Amino acid sequence: MYEFDADTTVTPVSEGVWAATPTARWNIGPNPNGGYLLALVLAATGRQITHPDPLVASAFYLGRTEPGVAAVLSVETIKAGRSFSSAEVHLAQQGTERLRALVTYGDLSLQAGPTMVTAAPPPLPPVEECVEIDPSQTPWEFSHRFEMRMPAEMAGLFRRPPNGKAAMGGYSRLRDGRDPDVRSLALFADGFPPPILNVVEAQWVPTLELTVHFRGRPAPGWLQMWFQTRFLVGGVLEEDGEIRDSEGNLVALTRQLAVVRGGTTTAGRDS
Amino acid sequence: MYEFDADTTVTPVSEGVWAATPTARWNIGPNPNGGYLLALVLAATGRQITHPDPLVASAFYLGRTEPGVAAVLSVETIKAGRSFSSAEVHLAQQGTERLRALVTYGDLSLQAGPTMVTAAPPPLPPVEECVEIDPSQTPWEFSHRFEMRMPAEMAGLFRRPPNGKAAMGGYSRLRDGRDPDVRSLALFADGFPPPILNVVEAQWVPTLELTVHFRGRPAPGWLQMWFQTRFLVGGVLEEDGEIRDSEGNLVALTRQLAVVRGGTTTAGRDS
Repeated sequence: MYEFDADTTVTPVSEGVWAATPTARWNIGPNPNGGYLLALVLAATGRQITHPDPLVASAFYLGRTEPGVAAVLSVETIKAGRSFSSAEVHLAQQGTERLRALVTYGDLSLQAGPTMVTAAPPPLPPVEECVEIDPSQTPWEFSHRFEMRMPAEMAGLFRRPPNGKAAMGGYSRLRDGRDPDVRSLALFADGFPPPILNVVEAQWVPTLELTVHFRGRPAPGWLQMWFQTRFLVGGVLEEDGEIRDSEGNLVALTRQLAVVRGGTTTAGRDS
Repeated sequence: MYEFDADTTVTPVSEGVWAATPTARWNIGPNPNGGYLLALVLAATGRQITHPDPLVASAFYLGRTEPGVAAVLSVETIKAGRSFSSAEVHLAQQGTERLRALVTYGDLSLQAGPTMVTAAPPPLPPVEECVEIDPSQTPWEFSHRFEMRMPAEMAGLFRRPPNGKAAMGGYSRLRDGRDPDVRSLALFADGFPPPILNVVEAQWVPTLELTVHFRGRPAPGWLQMWFQTRFLVGGVLEEDGEIRDSEGNLVALTRQLAVVRGGTTTAGRDS
C-alpha cells in the first residue's frame, strides 16, 4: 500500500463517525501538513458521499493536530442532491476539535458545459530542465514523501537568502510512485514551500483556512505546481495555487489565508 | 436606517439562534444575491463573536433562499481564542437548510506584521472617466441598490453582445450613501455582474461556494472592484475578485466556484 493511502486510512466507528491516526510522515516541523489533514477529511467524506469527486472543500484550522494521536472524524451529510452533495466534517483529537471543513461533491466526468481557458501557463521550464530537490536539504519530514523539481532560481529557497519574489513553482509527485487522483490534490494544494518564504524569513506560516477547487481528474505523472502571494498585509497573506496535470490541464485551484510568525521582510529591507 | 442595515437585521431568538427575513431588494432575478446572504450570516456572527472583524468566511450554497420568508440562523461558536474566533452558521427557511458557512474572526486593526504588495492595481481608469450604470437598463433589483461606474468597454455587458473577455471591473457604492465596512464587503464580494457573462450567454450563474478574505477596514467612499474568470472548464468556473477602498488599499479578496446554466461560449464560436 502506498504511503498516502496508508496514512489516510479511515475506519468506520459508527454512523457518520470515522477513526484515523494522522502520522508524522507528512509533518512540517512538529505539525502535520494542512493539505494532508484535508486529504484525510476527504477520505472520510469519500466513504460516505455517493458522488465520486470533491468539487470544493474549505478547511478551517482551529488548533494543532498531533501526529500519532487517534483522531475522530465526524461526518454530517448536509445535502444529497442529484448533481451535488455536501458534507461537514469535524476532526477531533482527545475530545478537542482541531479542524472543521465543508465539502461539496459532484461528478467531474459529467461536466459538459462550455470550456474557455484564458490563463497563461505558469512560467516554468520543462521538468527535465529543473533542479531535483534533495529532501535531506530541507528541514521537513514532508519533503521525503515527494519527488520535487524546481527551476534553479526557485530551488534557491533551500540555500538562503530568499530571492525576494513571492512565487514558487515546479513539479511534484509522490516519491513512492502513487499517481495523483482528485483526493490527493488536497495534499498537493498545501504541498509546496510557501512562496512568502522567498520574501519573509518567517519561522512558521500557519494556515487559518484552505479552500481547494477540484477542477479535473489528473492524468498520471508529474503535477505542475504554481503558487504565489501578491498581498502580504500586516503579516497576513493569501497563497494562491494552480495545479495542472502532466497533460497541462488545470486540476485544482487553491487559496489559503495564512499568517507569518517571526518574520522580517527581506524585500522590504532592500526596496 | 440604510437599506443594507435594515435588510440584514437579525433578532435574537434563543442562545445561538437568530431570526431574519431576507428581502427581495437584493435579488438577482428571483434569488437573493449570495453575497447579501453571506452579509446576513455575518450580521448574526457579529452579534455573537467578541472579535471585531471577520477575517475569512466560506459559504456553501445548498439550495434556493426565498426572499420575504422568515429565516433562522443558527450560530455555533466553534472556538473563542485569544487571536481568533471561529463560528459556523446554518441558514434555514421553513425547516430546510439553504446555506452553511464557516467564519473566522480576528482584529484587523491589530495586524502588525510585515507588508509587501506586489499585485498591480487593476487596469481601470479613474472613477470620473467611467460610465455610470443606469440600473433601469439591468434586469436586476439588486442593481438599484448601488451606484456603479464602469469603463465604457465593460459597461457594454448591458448592451449585448458580450465583449469576449471574462474580466469586469469598476467602482461601486451603496446608492443610499451607506459607506462600506468590513461586513458589507461580503455583499460587494458577489456584487458585480459575473465576468463570465462577457464570454458565455448564460441564463444563470449559480454559486456553489463563496469564500471572502477580509483584508482591511475600508475607507469611506467608492470601492474599486475587479473580477475575472480564467478557467471555464466544462461549464464550471472560478470567479476571483479584488476589492480596494477609495485610498487604493486592498480590503477583500474573493473567490467563488460557480456553474453556467444555459450557456453558449460566444468567444469559442469566434476563435
